[in-house]
Amino acid sequence: MKAEIIAVGTELLLGQVVNTNATFLSEQLADLGIEVYYQTVVGDNQQRLEELIALAETRSELILLCGGLGPTEDDLTKEATAAHLGKSLIQNTEGYKKLLAYFETTHRKMTKNNLQQSQIIEGGVPLPNRTGLALGTFYQTDTHAYILLPGPPNELKPMFVEQVRPLLEERFPSEEKLISKVLRFYGIGESRLVTELKDLIETQINPTIAPYAKPNEVTLRLTVKTKDVQAGNQALLALEEKIQERVGEYFYGYGDDNSLAKVVVELLKANKQTVTAAESLTAGAFQAALGDIAGVSDVFPGGFVTYSLQTKAGFLEIDPELLAEYGTVSKECVEQMAIQAREIARTDYSVAFTGVAGPDMLEGHPAGTVWIAISSKDGVVSEKYHFARDRAAIRYNAVMQGFDLLRKQLLRK
Amino acid sequence: MKAEIIAVGTELLLGQVVNTNATFLSEQLADLGIEVYYQTVVGDNQQRLEELIALAETRSELILLCGGLGPTEDDLTKEATAAHLGKSLIQNTEGYKKLLAYFETTHRKMTKNNLQQSQIIEGGVPLPNRTGLALGTFYQTDTHAYILLPGPPNELKPMFVEQVRPLLEERFPSEEKLISKVLRFYGIGESRLVTELKDLIETQINPTIAPYAKPNEVTLRLTVKTKDVQAGNQALLALEEKIQERVGEYFYGYGDDNSLAKVVVELLKANKQTVTAAESLTAGAFQAALGDIAGVSDVFPGGFVTYSLQTKAGFLEIDPELLAEYGTVSKECVEQMAIQAREIARTDYSVAFTGVAGPDMLEGHPAGTVWIAISSKDGVVSEKYHFARDRAAIRYNAVMQGFDLLRKQLLRK
Repeated sequence: MKAEIIAVGTELLLGQVVNTNATFLSEQLADLGIEVYYQTVVGDNQQRLEELIALAETRSELILLCGGLGPTEDDLTKEATAAHLGKSLIQNTEGYKKLLAYFETTHRKMTKNNLQQSQIIEGGVPLPNRTGLALGTFYQTDTHAYILLPGPPNELKPMFVEQVRPLLEERFPSEEKLISKVLRFYGIGESRLVTELKDLIETQINPTIAPYAKPNEVTLRLTVKTKDVQAGNQALLALEEKIQERVGEYFYGYGDDNSLAKVVVELLKANKQTVTAAESLTAGAFQAALGDIAGVSDVFPGGFVTYSLQTKAGFLEIDPELLAEYGTVSKECVEQMAIQAREIARTDYSVAFTGVAGPDMLEGHPAGTVWIAISSKDGVVSEKYHFARDRAAIRYNAVMQGFDLLRKQLLRK
Repeated sequence: MKAEIIAVGTELLLGQVVNTNATFLSEQLADLGIEVYYQTVVGDNQQRLEELIALAETRSELILLCGGLGPTEDDLTKEATAAHLGKSLIQNTEGYKKLLAYFETTHRKMTKNNLQQSQIIEGGVPLPNRTGLALGTFYQTDTHAYILLPGPPNELKPMFVEQVRPLLEERFPSEEKLISKVLRFYGIGESRLVTELKDLIETQINPTIAPYAKPNEVTLRLTVKTKDVQAGNQALLALEEKIQERVGEYFYGYGDDNSLAKVVVELLKANKQTVTAAESLTAGAFQAALGDIAGVSDVFPGGFVTYSLQTKAGFLEIDPELLAEYGTVSKECVEQMAIQAREIARTDYSVAFTGVAGPDMLEGHPAGTVWIAISSKDGVVSEKYHFARDRAAIRYNAVMQGFDLLRKQLLRK
């Protein structure tokens, strides 16, 4: 089944509100195995909305409309849809009672406009609104189904999950299930990853491979459509093996809700080991990323931000003469930072960062020059990098690279 | 002039990415006095994209396409638009040079696919990409204009602001100018701000007032449409005065590209003063926010992340008995952290954070309990807060509050 999502609201077209409803509904529909081909935003204008519904009917069987169910003059999604279908709007008794009760409890004055909120399209299934007042409607014809949902996300989401999903599963049962697996890669660009997997991607039918690039990482979503869960999982596994053979060296973990920092924290926890950091150009961003993860206190006692030469010498007790001789953007400096931070914080590992965030040059090195060192009981190792783009990207790159270096060290044990 | 925005990308239709580009572009176009009637999202499918461009031409004169300029097979916005216009794609020399230089500097391997990124539609104006590799194109016919922009927001935004805006202003000049002024507020919620200004907002015609809520701050964009720049500026000033009278205590600065951290760094620079930090639950996020600002080394030498009791005692030389007696989530602890950090780092100011990021309780305090202290030559002051929501929000709230406390101290001098 093909679906499309129409969000109604001039505030969306003025850029005052982000259309997160479309994202949420798309994700939910993908999960139900319903394909979304279009998302459209249209203003509070009855003619344009009716035209859009007519267009949507030529492309999709399921049409979801969100927004415009409220009490103001601008709210005309129900009117436009009913007019297009040649139906009237009728009061829903349960919805009307809830409306009355709300205004009684809150001692607010109910206006005539509020009555709109408890109307539904004649012949449709009312969708009660647990977290608000405007009723939704589910309306089905021989060829199409229409779902009208309220605009506020805190009303739309529970209405969809609690009522629309079961209704869709009942009315449009799908024998086939979608099973997905997300593989995460670091250190390889999207274009190179896609080139390495070109033949697999070009011949994909089922399972499918969807690459997606985020800053500094690429994910591959493998999805299989199947009636047989076990066979589906096996097909995913077989595909994953082919992928791992070619680009496995860049793979670091599974799942939507994962990150290099999470993988590192899990490895440290499993090893019962700890880490500290000494950060110059990243100025605490590596440690802040550790702090994002609940329960990180088991593996991270704290660390240092040594932005100036003086704090490198002072906090980390590094010989100022060494810093003067080699400069702060040097192998010698970053290795001393790592060694001393580990020593002072008494941790198993430490990661140190120094370099040039830019935009200006520093000590004769161009912006993007970054040294990263890792110290452990086995000694200290360091690497020099040249990151590109702006200050924010250079610092973010450095943090990600620090996590990846540490991850590789932890895996080597 | 009527415009519409087409975002291209299957990841948007799968609900994996929120379409913030449409919001940004809508806001920018509104600001230019260009009306947006539709936003549409379509997948990485050449036929559907070409059909959509043809449809858009029947409704709008200006068509903005975003996404699909990258190097993979999926990226076909340029191909589809060129095919629809009956034009070919040509290599842009400047873009090609930049591409080569990027792969040389970063020592990465360039693939044939990457060449797509430096192509533009024949006869179009190339739009260089300051923060990425894929070129944009501006293409104009007798009846329509087409603007192709990259999908990553950090590439699309500077390209639009720096290149597309001046181009639109030049090619489609409007007799009336829009003059805007952005006021930024911290410490007041959007609903309260709007309530305080209710009569001004309800009677607005010219200038207009557009409130916009970001996490932890609210901005008001005042916009006047005028042929007389001086009169327009005076109208904005008169409106701003009314607003400042009512909610001026929450105002902290002007402009889109501003933040509490920037204001703090500017004040410190103006005073020739310095700051350090000792962070427990924020784990470096305050210092990382300082590090975001170019030139911060003049006012920030470095600081401490003291996540555990041991590092609070060790790095900051705080008496462990005090920590044991009062706990780490206490006035006594946070004030010692601030005093000692300032002492050790030899700065004019220090900011210290301790508390419970959650999700679990700590030392009997619920998640969201946060102490912040500021130490200066005038002594130490501290405040206790109860922040709500999740771990990320609690930590972000704490950082923002720390900047606001420091800002107020700096203004008091």
